[in-house]
Amino acid sequence: MEKEKVMTVMYGCVMITMDADQRVFKDGAIVIHLDRIKAIGHSQQILSDFSHLADHLIDLTGHIILPGLINTHVHTSQQLARGIADDVDLVTWLHHRIWPYESALTEHDSYLSTLLCGIELIHSGVTCFAEAGGQHVSGMAKAVELLGLRACLTQSTMDSGYGLPSSWATRTTQDCIQSQMDNYHNYNNTAQGRIRIWFGIRQIMNSTQNLLLQTKHAAAQLNTGIHMHVAEIPYENQLVVDVHKVNHGTVTYLDKIDFLQNNLLAAHSVWVDDNEISLLSKAGVKVSHCPAAAMRMLGFAPVREMLGAGICVSLGTDGAPSNNRMSIVDEMYLASLINKGREVFANGTTDPTALSSETILNMVTVNGAKSVQWDDELGSLEVGKKADIVVVNPSTWSMVPVHDCISSMVYCMRTENVVSVMCNGLWIMKDKKIINVDEEEVILKAKQASAELLERAGIKLPTRMNFI
Amino acid sequence: MEKEKVMTVMYGCVMITMDADQRVFKDGAIVIHLDRIKAIGHSQQILSDFSHLADHLIDLTGHIILPGLINTHVHTSQQLARGIADDVDLVTWLHHRIWPYESALTEHDSYLSTLLCGIELIHSGVTCFAEAGGQHVSGMAKAVELLGLRACLTQSTMDSGYGLPSSWATRTTQDCIQSQMDNYHNYNNTAQGRIRIWFGIRQIMNSTQNLLLQTKHAAAQLNTGIHMHVAEIPYENQLVVDVHKVNHGTVTYLDKIDFLQNNLLAAHSVWVDDNEISLLSKAGVKVSHCPAAAMRMLGFAPVREMLGAGICVSLGTDGAPSNNRMSIVDEMYLASLINKGREVFANGTTDPTALSSETILNMVTVNGAKSVQWDDELGSLEVGKKADIVVVNPSTWSMVPVHDCISSMVYCMRTENVVSVMCNGLWIMKDKKIINVDEEEVILKAKQASAELLERAGIKLPTRMNFI
Repeated sequence: MEKEKVMTVMYGCVMITMDADQRVFKDGAIVIHLDRIKAIGHSQQILSDFSHLADHLIDLTGHIILPGLINTHVHTSQQLARGIADDVDLVTWLHHRIWPYESALTEHDSYLSTLLCGIELIHSGVTCFAEAGGQHVSGMAKAVELLGLRACLTQSTMDSGYGLPSSWATRTTQDCIQSQMDNYHNYNNTAQGRIRIWFGIRQIMNSTQNLLLQTKHAAAQLNTGIHMHVAEIPYENQLVVDVHKVNHGTVTYLDKIDFLQNNLLAAHSVWVDDNEISLLSKAGVKVSHCPAAAMRMLGFAPVREMLGAGICVSLGTDGAPSNNRMSIVDEMYLASLINKGREVFANGTTDPTALSSETILNMVTVNGAKSVQWDDELGSLEVGKKADIVVVNPSTWSMVPVHDCISSMVYCMRTENVVSVMCNGLWIMKDKKIINVDEEEVILKAKQASAELLERAGIKLPTRMNFI
Repeated sequence: MEKEKVMTVMYGCVMITMDADQRVFKDGAIVIHLDRIKAIGHSQQILSDFSHLADHLIDLTGHIILPGLINTHVHTSQQLARGIADDVDLVTWLHHRIWPYESALTEHDSYLSTLLCGIELIHSGVTCFAEAGGQHVSGMAKAVELLGLRACLTQSTMDSGYGLPSSWATRTTQDCIQSQMDNYHNYNNTAQGRIRIWFGIRQIMNSTQNLLLQTKHAAAQLNTGIHMHVAEIPYENQLVVDVHKVNHGTVTYLDKIDFLQNNLLAAHSVWVDDNEISLLSKAGVKVSHCPAAAMRMLGFAPVREMLGAGICVSLGTDGAPSNNRMSIVDEMYLASLINKGREVFANGTTDPTALSSETILNMVTVNGAKSVQWDDELGSLEVGKKADIVVVNPSTWSMVPVHDCISSMVYCMRTENVVSVMCNGLWIMKDKKIINVDEEEVILKAKQASAELLERAGIKLPTRMNFI
């Protein structure tokens, strides 16, 4: 490890900085010292200034580099559940598949699940993610530390609600807050500062008002964030209208109790009206748009409108049973397509200019960093920021010809093109090889653990087609 | 070549046959003799009956095989134009990018473009495609023959219309028919029978009624198919209503002139009303649904309704400047997501059960074969059919765990998982290596040719971001 913690100079690449001036170096170079970016510039200049100091000099001719991508909503503990809830209605999905699965999950399962998910995230160029709320933060933290990723980890938190598994139904509001405080004290700022601990609210239908307010207070006290699923389905909004006597839905209610603020990361936010968009914007709430999960389960979020209102919208994959691909590279492609198509319903025709590729790239870098409240150190290639970097090889059948470098990153790039990933100044994937864990061993263990878990949870899937 | 044209037995795999009984062999085996499937069954039985006769005995333990996938709408001659028309409105797309590109295309460009596109198709498990209509059938045919693929090739055909490039504007109806007759006589049933020649109609706005009727007559005479873009945008329908005095759009007009019949493959068919769905169904017209291109440029096709009305709907990628990924594997994923999401607009909520994974798999195999009028020999793994086979390795980070084998093929599988592809009894990709061409050489030549082509066509793309 120590060998890597020295000065590395990479040169000869197209460098998409995502800085405020949107600079792209045609023949760029970057200097990494320890965990940070020490210099960036044109290759010639950087090589002249730094090559004699460099421990590693890496020729990236023909490659493109960009800031590490940020996935702002992913259930890493659900990775072992990929495929357990395909083509089923929402009630079956939640009550008969996901809750039984999650309530049967051990700490070791969370660890393995996060390892497996993390491998997929790295292959898609992710260096930092926001956990959407899972079972065992201890297991997740162990996996994130090992993989070398960066993450804001969050516990799945519910203190009420209909139909909860018995092991969850007895949890009090105080239990919820206390266990998250414990997580914070045990894991925040661990793994060389790569792990931060956030507070979680699973969703409004599983939260008392007391939990919401105590969470707000605790997060403010610890100066950390809150991750919550917000306005996912029309039923949720209707329930909130009925119970809390507000005129629209979850966002209106959260505003009423003064819960909306700039440390809140609201996932999905599909069913919000114009007034609620305005409320989110005013409060500085961040929104994680998860295109695949939205298409499959929730609906079309008003992403163009939210961006237009100045809301910081980023991208997430959601969890494996909602998607099932955990690739932020695919979500970029989807976000563009879906939001261009959605214009049909507003204006009668699609708008191929909606959510341009620059906007999408911004969502997975700059906006991602703001969403996880880490934009002082992440989201762009700038001097002084953390060295979180993705190296892309565009010279393959999946991207050639690259006539438009920027749009090709969004519309053509696939996980195949992501060749190397650096996080915190260290390679976590190099030439497609995951560095810190044995990928095949994780796959084998995950297969076995997930089969045992489904057995233990009593989840049986109906057979499709005619297996003989 | 001759060495391969013998008896091959593959065993030990999950075999998704897509036959009428939807049989999936848990431990299946398949015998290939020359270009056809000689036997299928359980490994034990097949090995006992055939292993002593086999020239090649291939252990596929841990793998899944399924029929070669069929892409029913792809512009192979547009591959060199990937990225030339991203985030632009439709008029810019067509008049300032695509038409200048296509009218500057040489036969050699069509050849290189089809080679590059074909490589991408093979990597996504495609063994057969329907060309959507391109410039030089001679160039396409040469590439398809070399790659070892199977295709229904079609010339881009227009005899009228506003704003056509000058080299096209002089083409008469007779020219259009004659050049396609020539293509038919030169290339139909060539490449060991892997190439068939179809007639093309680019779209209603570029066709006289005379061209439509002569095309119908010529296709009937030669017993071949017609590939046409149908009902792509609201403007098209409106123009048809205005000019031809029918009460809806293209489909209504095509019915009026008795053009709709079961050898017509209608691409997109996004803007069709209930009556038109009924007209398409009664006439036995096949529809190619292209989810990515539809999202980006056209709108939401009523796929569930068309399938419900008994229309044979298959999947296509469309061309590189409309998508830009040419992966039928991604289109499966998209088709499912988009059509689940589209239900929001009909019913207020998404329907996660819409377009199940069985339906999607059917669309890319059985329905694909019917759409290209080749279902007597393609679309399923059955004795006597052509040996067009995809071998999938699901034991990677991108698919594990596979709890639901069938849905995992649609929702989790990526191009990474497609390891080997056989067409007409011969491997055209083995262990990720394209067999019949040098992939890197094609990529190099395509880069150069496409740069020269854009220069020749006078296409200049505005710069995004701030390149320095």
